[in-house]
Amino acid sequence: MKEFRKELLDLVPYTPGEQPSSKSKIIKLNTNENPYAPSPKCSIALKEIMDLGLLRKYPNPSSDSLRDSIAQVYGISKENILVTNGSDEAIRLLFLGVLGNQSTIASPDPTYSAYPVFADTIMVDYCFIKVPLLENFHFDWQSLLETQADLVAFANPNAPTSLLEPKEQVLDFVNKFPGFVLCDEAYIDFAKANSSCIQEACSSDNLFVSRTFSKSYSLAGLRVGFLVGSTKNIAILHKLKDSYNVGMLDQAIAQAAISDQDYFKEITSKILATRSSLSSSLVDLGCDVVTSSTNFLFVKPPKGHKAKDWFEKLKNQAIYIRYFSSGVSSDFIRITIGTDEESNHVLSAIRNFLENP
Amino acid sequence: MKEFRKELLDLVPYTPGEQPSSKSKIIKLNTNENPYAPSPKCSIALKEIMDLGLLRKYPNPSSDSLRDSIAQVYGISKENILVTNGSDEAIRLLFLGVLGNQSTIASPDPTYSAYPVFADTIMVDYCFIKVPLLENFHFDWQSLLETQADLVAFANPNAPTSLLEPKEQVLDFVNKFPGFVLCDEAYIDFAKANSSCIQEACSSDNLFVSRTFSKSYSLAGLRVGFLVGSTKNIAILHKLKDSYNVGMLDQAIAQAAISDQDYFKEITSKILATRSSLSSSLVDLGCDVVTSSTNFLFVKPPKGHKAKDWFEKLKNQAIYIRYFSSGVSSDFIRITIGTDEESNHVLSAIRNFLENP
Repeated sequence: MKEFRKELLDLVPYTPGEQPSSKSKIIKLNTNENPYAPSPKCSIALKEIMDLGLLRKYPNPSSDSLRDSIAQVYGISKENILVTNGSDEAIRLLFLGVLGNQSTIASPDPTYSAYPVFADTIMVDYCFIKVPLLENFHFDWQSLLETQADLVAFANPNAPTSLLEPKEQVLDFVNKFPGFVLCDEAYIDFAKANSSCIQEACSSDNLFVSRTFSKSYSLAGLRVGFLVGSTKNIAILHKLKDSYNVGMLDQAIAQAAISDQDYFKEITSKILATRSSLSSSLVDLGCDVVTSSTNFLFVKPPKGHKAKDWFEKLKNQAIYIRYFSSGVSSDFIRITIGTDEESNHVLSAIRNFLENP
Repeated sequence: MKEFRKELLDLVPYTPGEQPSSKSKIIKLNTNENPYAPSPKCSIALKEIMDLGLLRKYPNPSSDSLRDSIAQVYGISKENILVTNGSDEAIRLLFLGVLGNQSTIASPDPTYSAYPVFADTIMVDYCFIKVPLLENFHFDWQSLLETQADLVAFANPNAPTSLLEPKEQVLDFVNKFPGFVLCDEAYIDFAKANSSCIQEACSSDNLFVSRTFSKSYSLAGLRVGFLVGSTKNIAILHKLKDSYNVGMLDQAIAQAAISDQDYFKEITSKILATRSSLSSSLVDLGCDVVTSSTNFLFVKPPKGHKAKDWFEKLKNQAIYIRYFSSGVSSDFIRITIGTDEESNHVLSAIRNFLENP
């Protein structure tokens, strides 16, 4: 009897943050979801499809209209864009396209923890080099360069640290590095203006930028992301996707959302304001808070308090945040920026921990 | 500079049937879409999600509620089911799980032409054995057995022939064959009752059955399919999917559709009635029509008429059907079963070809 590939038996999949039933009354700040509903235009787009009875038909296989809208927003060409089933598919297809057995991948450590999982699913015999962050949590660019890996993958701004690497630094690395570079910009819409490398990816031989609609566009429930790269590189990866990789509703809703830039700016500003105030309050309470360019904070409790305890005590109060038990992250909690009201709940809980240790 | 895997440069992706703009007035019988709208319950499920503003949250990562509903309809356990982004993902994950370099895959020829494409995307050095159909278009089971391949993949009922292999025959093969078997039942809901191998897949070490919501549930616009196999096999493949592989709307709509069995039976009966009458009329006109167990007909024009000509002439009249230019298929056209009205349009066009050759 034939068997599954043996290495798969030990494969440990990526663990997403807990998704408690939507009926339970909790404050959910554990998976970096947006606290605000998606653009009202999404419902209109949806209703149109349902009213016209279009769901019985196959979707556009290359998400053409959505690519037009993305291209317009970023001032790039649609041929530079591959729309995917969440940015996870973007990352997976890039890995599939450029890696093979004996390949070497490098990543800062910590960063998005799914990269090694993608590698595990497609390769047997490869090398994954984790390059520890510098003490200030920035990337150790020199060591990343010295890996001479086939692919370097990182999130910028990084998760779970929330820290942004300056664009000039990223581009300088891309120029020097002989391999492919994946710059995963899932959180870039929460960083200061002009931090994205999207435009530069279009004219680069080795840089790819991935994006998602899950965070800043409030559409985690959909699975839509995209990859940006040179026309030539994107054309090759386009051949690797499943024929109809993104559903009709997902294409239409994502398009409605990205076309409503006013709403997008409005909710993003609200999140940045809440972030700023939550961050100040936590600092006032004696926490270390990394300067965030994302929709979450990476927070170290004051001396005498343990991150893991706070995580558990908050959970007991039905406030879900995220805790990573390994490495440098184990001293921190990650709190998604919710509404002001949710922030206040977290703050009063933490005040209570400090007053009644 | 690092490069893409060389073999990808020559990769030829699967070509889906043409998707002309939904605004153009055509009769579209080229991609086996269902002519009827999905269950009205789908819109209700959708509205609930939008009204509750749930799209900002991640979907259930394992499509749990949908798996419950599927399990109930087929009298199987949810642990036997992997819900996927279209049945394409089901097939791709199975290939990824059981194949590696040096693997051998076998398929009847012709069958769903995407199987070699999936193999191409994940493997460099492998062997794909195409076993020609018998003259009566049934599978050459003996030759498939003799391939001793790691995996045999086929559609049953088969595409583009529309012909059903009897369940006993499939199970007999599965018992004798030492490798894995993928029985792709995309069209089985249009076959006679008790033709499916779903129940048997649950207790088999080597049989997998894939299904889709695209055809009989009128949901090609969504991307939802599923794979059925033993609890042990499905648990391994579950680890290979992207963390959130199926969107929230897709899960909810597919669940609404499969839970509305009355509507499902109603539209399926209508399609079977149209199929029966279109088939008889084409036979009366002198065509050879394969006995269809699907929502399409595989039709050979009478002597003196060429399938390719009919395909082109129908297209000129804005009637889209499908034509495959290679092998035995090149003598046939494939016509999706639409409404009675659409059938009548096809019939009068064909009558005209015969009267004015």
